[in-house]
Parts: sequence; C-alpha cells; structure tokens
Amino acid sequence: MGDYTSTFYEKDAKVAEELLARLRELNENELIRLADFLRKMIITVVSHNGGHLASNLGVVELTIALHRAFQSPRDKIIWDVGHQTYAHKLLTGRAKEFATLRQYQGLSGFPKRSESPHDVYETGHSSTSISAALGMALARDLRSENHHIAAVIGDGALTGGLAFEAMNHAGQSATRLIVILNDNDMSISANVGSIAKHLNELRVQPSYFWAKNEVKSLLQKLPYEGERIIDLIQRIKISAKHLVLPGLIFEELGFTYLGPVDGHDFAALEFILQQAKKATTPVLLHVLTRKGMGYTPAELSPTRFHGISPFDSATGRTISATKSSFTQVFAETMLDLAAEDPRIVAVTAAMPEGTGLASFAERYPQRFFDVGIAEEHAVTLAAGLATGGARPIVAIYSSFLQRAFDQLVVDVALQNLPVVFAVDRAGIVGEDGASHHGIFDLSYLRLIPGLRVLAPKDYHELRGMLRLSFMEDIPTAIRYPRSEGVEGLPANLNRQNLLDLTQSEIMRPGEASWILAVGPLAILATEVSDNLRQEGYTLGVVNLRSINPLDEVTLGHVLKNGRKIITLEENTLTGGVGSSIMELCQKNNVICHIKTLGLPSAFLHQGERTELLAASKLDLHSVTEAVLTFLRSGSE
Amino acid sequence: MGDYTSTFYEKDAKVAEELLARLRELNENELIRLADFLRKMIITVVSHNGGHLASNLGVVELTIALHRAFQSPRDKIIWDVGHQTYAHKLLTGRAKEFATLRQYQGLSGFPKRSESPHDVYETGHSSTSISAALGMALARDLRSENHHIAAVIGDGALTGGLAFEAMNHAGQSATRLIVILNDNDMSISANVGSIAKHLNELRVQPSYFWAKNEVKSLLQKLPYEGERIIDLIQRIKISAKHLVLPGLIFEELGFTYLGPVDGHDFAALEFILQQAKKATTPVLLHVLTRKGMGYTPAELSPTRFHGISPFDSATGRTISATKSSFTQVFAETMLDLAAEDPRIVAVTAAMPEGTGLASFAERYPQRFFDVGIAEEHAVTLAAGLATGGARPIVAIYSSFLQRAFDQLVVDVALQNLPVVFAVDRAGIVGEDGASHHGIFDLSYLRLIPGLRVLAPKDYHELRGMLRLSFMEDIPTAIRYPRSEGVEGLPANLNRQNLLDLTQSEIMRPGEASWILAVGPLAILATEVSDNLRQEGYTLGVVNLRSINPLDEVTLGHVLKNGRKIITLEENTLTGGVGSSIMELCQKNNVICHIKTLGLPSAFLHQGERTELLAASKLDLHSVTEAVLTFLRSGSE
Repeated sequence: MGDYTSTFYEKDAKVAEELLARLRELNENELIRLADFLRKMIITVVSHNGGHLASNLGVVELTIALHRAFQSPRDKIIWDVGHQTYAHKLLTGRAKEFATLRQYQGLSGFPKRSESPHDVYETGHSSTSISAALGMALARDLRSENHHIAAVIGDGALTGGLAFEAMNHAGQSATRLIVILNDNDMSISANVGSIAKHLNELRVQPSYFWAKNEVKSLLQKLPYEGERIIDLIQRIKISAKHLVLPGLIFEELGFTYLGPVDGHDFAALEFILQQAKKATTPVLLHVLTRKGMGYTPAELSPTRFHGISPFDSATGRTISATKSSFTQVFAETMLDLAAEDPRIVAVTAAMPEGTGLASFAERYPQRFFDVGIAEEHAVTLAAGLATGGARPIVAIYSSFLQRAFDQLVVDVALQNLPVVFAVDRAGIVGEDGASHHGIFDLSYLRLIPGLRVLAPKDYHELRGMLRLSFMEDIPTAIRYPRSEGVEGLPANLNRQNLLDLTQSEIMRPGEASWILAVGPLAILATEVSDNLRQEGYTLGVVNLRSINPLDEVTLGHVLKNGRKIITLEENTLTGGVGSSIMELCQKNNVICHIKTLGLPSAFLHQGERTELLAASKLDLHSVTEAVLTFLRSGSE
Repeated sequence: MGDYTSTFYEKDAKVAEELLARLRELNENELIRLADFLRKMIITVVSHNGGHLASNLGVVELTIALHRAFQSPRDKIIWDVGHQTYAHKLLTGRAKEFATLRQYQGLSGFPKRSESPHDVYETGHSSTSISAALGMALARDLRSENHHIAAVIGDGALTGGLAFEAMNHAGQSATRLIVILNDNDMSISANVGSIAKHLNELRVQPSYFWAKNEVKSLLQKLPYEGERIIDLIQRIKISAKHLVLPGLIFEELGFTYLGPVDGHDFAALEFILQQAKKATTPVLLHVLTRKGMGYTPAELSPTRFHGISPFDSATGRTISATKSSFTQVFAETMLDLAAEDPRIVAVTAAMPEGTGLASFAERYPQRFFDVGIAEEHAVTLAAGLATGGARPIVAIYSSFLQRAFDQLVVDVALQNLPVVFAVDRAGIVGEDGASHHGIFDLSYLRLIPGLRVLAPKDYHELRGMLRLSFMEDIPTAIRYPRSEGVEGLPANLNRQNLLDLTQSEIMRPGEASWILAVGPLAILATEVSDNLRQEGYTLGVVNLRSINPLDEVTLGHVLKNGRKIITLEENTLTGGVGSSIMELCQKNNVICHIKTLGLPSAFLHQGERTELLAASKLDLHSVTEAVLTFLRSGSE
C-alpha cells in the first residue's frame, strides 16, 4: 500500500495505467486504507486551497469501486457537475499536482480533457452527464464498439430537466448505459421535489432487486377466488415489476433499477457494479453515500463544506475573517424589503446559501421557493408568480442564468413581467474556473428587449437598485460580482433618488476624454483618473449604472465628436457594454475615438479573482497603462 | 344556437362574459353543434391564412368543456405552446377579428395578454405552462384567493425538461393545481421517449380512477397464508395506489392521476373536470384527443396539418406551389454528406419535418435522433456524440436554440467539440410572431468563444458551408432564413474553395463607402449598390459569410479611416453584426463612419415576412433610402 500510494507522485500516462491496474489487485483491507489515504490528501489540500469537500469525501469508495470495475479510459466515466472528482484525479495520476488544485495554472477543480485522458467529458453545470453519456453510447453503438459508459449523477442534479430529458430518451433508445445515482440526500443544500421524496422512500426500504424472480414465482402460487379477484390478481401479476422494484419512476422511464446499496461498502459496490455491467439496456444504480464521510466537521455541516474557503483541518473552522460582500448586502436588503412589501417572494435554484437567500428562507418560509437545480423552472415560475400578483426575485449566479436565457426572453421580457433578477457571481468568480465565470451576462442580458440591466458600483447602489426594482413594473436584472465591495454614500430612499440610480453618475468631471465603467470598476476608474491627473491628464469618469437602457441624457454630454472614450467592464468585449456605447454613438451620429477594456472572447481558467483580473489586464496598474497609451495615441 | 353563435361577432369584454355564461347553459346537442360550428370557422380561416390546424381541431370539445367548467378569467387557463387556442379565442369574444388570424396587425396565432383578459399567460415555446401555472397557484395561495388554475399541455410538450422540473416542484408543493394532459399521441411529429411509451400503455387500458376505493376494500378481503405471503400482501396493499392508478409516473411525481377520458365526449370531460376541481393537491387529468378531429384530410395527415400554409378546404391540398428553400437545400445536402461520411449523425428536437431532416431519418434511421421537444438535451447529446467520435449536426430553429444557450457555451464551445448547428428560421419567420422570430441568434451566438458562425447568402454557400463544417474539428453554427433563396454559382468542392466560404466575399468593388451584409441580404445589398450607381455613388458590397470570427484580412482592405460603412443584418442591432464591425474598427484603431441597419431592440409581431421586413425597413426601397441618406450626410 505504501508502495502503491507512493507511485501516486510519479506522473505520466503510464503511471495512471499502472496505478489503475494495481488498484484492481488490492484486497478489501488495502482498499479501506487507500480510502483513508485519499481522504487525508483531499482534506489537506482543500483545507489549504478551498474547494468542494463534502461531496468529494462522500464518493471516495465509489470512485475506487468505479475504477476497479471499469477500464478507464477505454470505459468512459462521466461525472455530473464534476466537483466530486478529486479522488478520481488522484487515482488517475494527478497526485503530484494535487496541491495546485483550483489554483492559477494548477489542477482544475472539475474534469478537464486537457489534464488527462481519464477526463472524457468536461462538466461544471449540473445535469448534463446522462445526455453526454447517452451521446457517447449511441456513437459507440454506431461504431460497433463495446466499452462501458457510466454517468455518475447526484440526487440534486436529477431535479434538472435536462437529466429527465436524457433519461426519457435513453430509456426508449434501449442502449447499454449505466447511470450511477450518487444519492447523498443533500444535493448542495437540502433536496427538494417529488423525486427527492421518492428517493427518501427508497432509502428506508431494503434492497429487493435480486428477489425479482423469487417473488414472481410466489405470485404464481397466490390463491384466489371469484372473478373480481381474478381480475385483480391479473393486475397484480402485470404489476409484479412495480411490487418488487422500488425505483418505480426510473423503471417507468425505461431503466432497470438496481439498489439501493451502501456507497461506502466495497463489497456491495463491487457486486452491484458487476451486475450493472451485464445489463444490455439502461440501468440505474442507486448508491447511498454520505456527504463529508470520514471528516466529522463536514459530516455535521455538509452544506457549509460543500464549497469552502481555506480552513483549519483540525477544527474545521475557516481561516479567513468573514468579509462583507455584495451577496451579504443583497441578503440583508431582501429582509428589509420583504418586511415592507408582502408581495415579495424569492426563488432560488438550489442555492439558498450561495445567493444569500438562506436568511430570507428562514424568516419567510412561505414566501421562499427553492426549486432544486432547475434554472429554467425558476425563471418561468417567477413569471407565473408575477402574473399572479406576487413580486418575485430570482437570485442566481450569472453563469447559471445562461440556462434560462430563453425563459428570460419569452416568459419574462416578452410579457414585460416585473421579475427581478439578482445576478450574483457576475464577472470573474475565481477558483471554480471556466464554467463558472459570469463573463457573458452583460452581453446576453442587454440584448433582451425591455429588460432593464443595472450594475451597482457599491453596496448603497445595490440596496437602492433592489428597492427601485420592486417599485417598478418591468423586468430588471441587477448584476454584481463575487467580491467585497465598498459601502458607498447612503441617500434618501425616495422615489426620485432611487430613479437616479438608473441614470449614469459622473464621478469625475471631464472634457476631452472619459472613462465609462460598469459596477465596482467605476471605483477603479476614479483611481485611474486620480493617477492620471498627476500625469497632467483630465479623465472624466462615468459610473454607467444602467446598461440597458443607457442613460442617453448623461451620455449625450459625454459622447461628442472627437472625444476619446474608454469603456471598462468585467465582461466579454464581444457584444458587451463597450459595444453598446459604440452603438449609441453611431445611432446619434457621433464619432468618438473609443477604446474598450474588458475580457477577451475566450474561456478563462481558474485562479484567484485578483490574479485573473491582473492576467486579464483589468487591475489598476494595467488599466492605467492602457488608458495612458490610448490617451497618448493619435491626436486628442 | 344560431342566436348564440351570432353574438360571437359582437366584440367587447362584456360579450365575452355573456358568451361564456350562456355557454354553460347549452345542452349536449347544442354543444355538439357548437363544436361543429367552431371547427368550420377554424377550417375556413386556416385554409385562407395558414396556421395550426390539426391541434386546434383536436381540442374543440376540450376547450368548450374547460370554459364550461371554469370561470375564466377569474379561473386561469394556461395553454402550453399556445398554438391550439383558436377555439378559445372564438369562445372569448374574438370571432369578429378571427379572419385576421396570424396576419399583420391581426389576431395572434398564440395567446396574447393584450388581446384579451382570458389570455392570462403568453406562450409560444413548449413546456412552460406547468411552471407558469404553479407560479400563479403559489401566488394565489399567498393572497388567500381560491380560483382554479389549469395548465393544458400536450404529450409532446411533456418531454421537455422544464415540464418535469415544474411537476417535480408542484408535486412536492402540494398546492391546488390542475394539469390537463392533452394526449394526441403525436406532439408535432410522432412522439418519442419513455413517457410516450408510458402514455401508450395507459391509452389501451380502461379508466380505473373511480375504482380506487372499491379495489382497496377488495384488497382487504384477499385471502392469504404463510409468512412470505403476508409480507407480499403487505406490499400489495402498500402498492394499491400503483395497482389501481395507471398514471404511475405522475403519481410518483406527487400528482393524482385521473383518466384517461375521451376528449371528444362532453359528458366524460364534464365529469372528470368536476372531479379535478374538487382536488386540493395537484391533479393530472389525462385526456385523449385526436389531432385533426372532424376534418378528414387533417385526421389522415396530422403532421402535414400541424402548421400549414393556405389550402383548399375541400381537398386539403395546399394552394401555393412549393418553392425552393434553404431548408430543402439543407435536407438534400445532408443526404449527400451522410452518404460520404458514415460518422455523420443528425439530431432534432421534435422537428424532423420542419428542419428538413425527415428525408435523412428515412434514409438513415440508425443515424437519426429525434429527442422530442428537448433542445437542451439535443445539444448536450450532440456534444456526447462528438466526444464518441460521431459527427453530429443539430438542426434547430433559431428561436428554439435560445433554450440551449448554456449547453452551447459549456458543453460544446468550452470543450471545442465538432458539433454543427443548422440554425433554420433565422431572422423574421412571419406569421408565428414574437416568440418564433429568430432575431437574436447572431448576437448570442457570436459572443460564444470559439464557435464559428456562418451565414450563407445562397444555396451554393449553404452547401459548401455544411460540407466544410464536417471537415473541420470545431463547433460551427450556420444560420439561414425561412425563405426562398437563390441558387448561387456552384464551385469546386475542394478544401480551399470551401475554406474560402469562411472569408468575406467582395461582391461589388468599392472605395470610400461600403455595405457589409449578412446572408441573403448581401444580394439585396448588390441591388442597392446597382441602384446607387445610377445616382452617381460607388458602393462596395461585402458578403460577410463568417460572423465569428470576422475575416480580418478582407475587412482590413475595406475598413480604413474616414470611410463610410453600412452594415446590414436580419438580426437585432443590439450586439449584432454591426456592433462586431465597430468592435473590429476600435480593435484596429480605425475610425469609420458607421451606419448599422437591422432590427430594433424590440419584439416583433406577426405578419408575412415581406410585410415585416418592409415594416422594419429592411426591404430594397428602405435600405436604398437609408444608405442614400447616410452617404449624403456629413463629409464623405
């Protein structure tokens, strides 16, 4: 064992192969020690780097069992969401870089095809694995190949409609496909919906899947009398499947249900995986795991240890002092507003903690709706709530709102319904990387007709914009980053003051050159302006506040022929706010010399927010340099 | 009756109220005559205007029964997709304008809140009704109101994940909500998936829902002996629900299942609707209807009569001669390409006919996947297929692709998988109106990093672009309108010639002023240029072809300081191609005088394509005028 795990630290494709081959030869005691070893590595690195802890500790035995049962990468293992792949990474030759997990230019916290051939499919957003696995299975069949394909999906991810669409298709296609339901009864937060209730019922039942034939023969011996009884027995026989197979809903969808089994019992996992491999049609294997398994603080508070910042592994206490954040200000403001207006209700897609709605949920349980990982439903439900006279807010991360783009367009904007969107994690999110950055929202939100899009530069503006949104009868999205902000100057909450928050704010007066900035970057822009004053440049600064519609009055003063205009946004430059300023210029026949600063049209990898901002040249130094270069260029 | 239907033609809110009140007093014979009358009106108007025929004929009795059972608009009826609301419109006071159905400035073919208080929720895209209805139900409960809320959803729409997300939430919420499953065993095309199979099984069973208590008492009398039997009977009792209620999957989702009933039998509908109204938790009412009911040609070919252009009501033959279309060229090209490359597979979300893939499906059934109305799954499945070595094409309408925006970003583009998207119905679609226009795709597609976005101006370019896409290992979207195109000049199919299709084409040489156009508008641009030559202007014309990335070499020749540039696209101007040209100019530090022509940031209503293009000033005359005005303005 010591020998086995020490080879963990060598690194090339051959080592991964060797590791996996030798993994299959370990005995149960060695496996138990290996699981212990993997847990220690995971706890150590996550306590340093932050990351997804509880879910990873929950699947250590399952991951080992999968890599013993399947021949990766010939057989394909697809991890839904993908935040639970730390043991998988360690077992497939990535122990050496494991300390760089989630760090800038280090190992990704999610599957990455560029990292390893064992990462066959990249995930990050929920509920995609069955679709992707089915696609691979259908491609395999067409090529007459015969490898196994297994999707590992959590019970929370099953609430996503995409998972249902895929199961509905898979069941009918009757191809060979293994879905492993990693049921920890939690998803990210406590689970919701009828499926969750169904799984709860299964959890308390013994496992019947091997008793199928036995029960069938019993049924044939059952005594009966009279015509009604005969008819009834007939129906009982037809329903034999439903009697002995607890996973009714999966059976109805065309899957053979196996389980439930204890996901921390190697023998049980081995047995059921071998059964699953024999199937010639889709099977669903129900595995019960415990989030945080093997680390008491995480077992006790799995939600807190879902995604966690660095912590003291001895006590489980997080190390960094709690900073203020836009999310917190949102949370507090919603409590105030809800107290004032009983029509206000809140919707989240499985993110009560992350979005800050947990306190709202506690205070107003009747007015709070956690719909599970179901962003499309969250948005259309909100449209329905608004139709019914409620004033819904949907609190959601920028990158997850991408999933409800059509519902934003058709259900909300087309009907001009007063739904408010609190778009959190806008811009660079940091360590979760490519799939989680919210770097497209300004582009995809501003193109939706009639959707007001606001970006507060500070807490005060966020509070006011929220308040205003519930006073107005139009759909509004308010986007803010995952970071600490500044307080800002409080002001009167009268309607006019609030409406002013839809007007752009001139933060520094200017003349021939201006910087127009979005959100907290407006504060950075004032620092740039102050720096440049020392160089002899007068740079006006505008905090745009409203991205759609633009404040044409204020901008009319700023945008005049021949002026030099810099735009600054934490968003892709493609179709972003810079482009909207150019659109305004051309509409008004104004020719400015424009320089747009923002993110390139590319996927960004993980790292600390500050690192990634610097790498993207959106830090104070880089912006100052870029502005200076631009101002010095050509004639001003 | 004659008296009743004659008041149909009066029009104000009071008439609707009166009509509905009197509807509840009609006897069965009168109802049958009314249904006949409504069918005749529907057939007459659809045969003139085109529209959705089969689905509307299928729900005439159901619509009448709903308006007798419920007190609209106090009670809320939400129509999924909404193309089946013609009888609803006639019964709620819109007979007078019914002849303008789907025409420019006429009655919408879908529910419209601005048309009537009886249209409580606007639909157009599938599978939203249960979410919206649940939102209304939760809002009702919070306000302590007690009206009924009914969502009417087809069996096809049930395959959409959003419907599942909503049912999963509704079942758990246990609120009072009526879902009416309008099961015509068809959706738009033949139905797919396990749910469809499940419904088929229900269809052939007698209806058991009223026998529940009777069977329960029988179960209690059932004789038994021995311990195993006792255990078994125990389980049988627990499963009583499953024995007597056929709608297992709905029961598992927390709904009480009622049905199935004949959707053309007024008495049966009345009975089951009254049962449903008594429920205090969610019920699903399974109604069997027949698409095209009462009109033989539509009963025989429901798919052809789903959405149909004007036809001869005596024979059912469509009147207009079949024109060529981009869709047809796509269909033919796919047959050629599939014959050459066995890796090519095709995916559609319930639109084999509309997208032109029906011929592919017939020729290559093993390589064709109709996933039902499940756009997210279609895209992620394609990503899985590509991962497995197949070369998938997803043929989809522009406005429906909005539903898979996140899957485009995360599953396809982030992994750089070679999935090809045939984006049909791009731009203005015509009579289906606001929810169906494909006027956002250039904006939301071009902002996805690494997604090649192409727009062919003619059939030849479409053929070549498709061929090229399967030769390249990157994701590609090809967008084309719902209209007739021109043939274009055929060329060699060698790789270089095909790659040229990603370069912009200079169609007319120019100097100081240029028009850069997208797709078939490039041909219109040449006509503008030719017109202007007579006025003494030389206007260069560029057919952009590739929207992302832009052809920086060709455009480098065109975009030079001081030049006048006009962009022309059938897409919203917000973040569209015009903006991308401005982005390119600022990136290269070129100052042009730019005029962008395209669609305003607004939802467009229905009408003929040519009417709407003219109203949007994208017809030859308007574009010529706009260009002329621009060229005359300021210094050239």
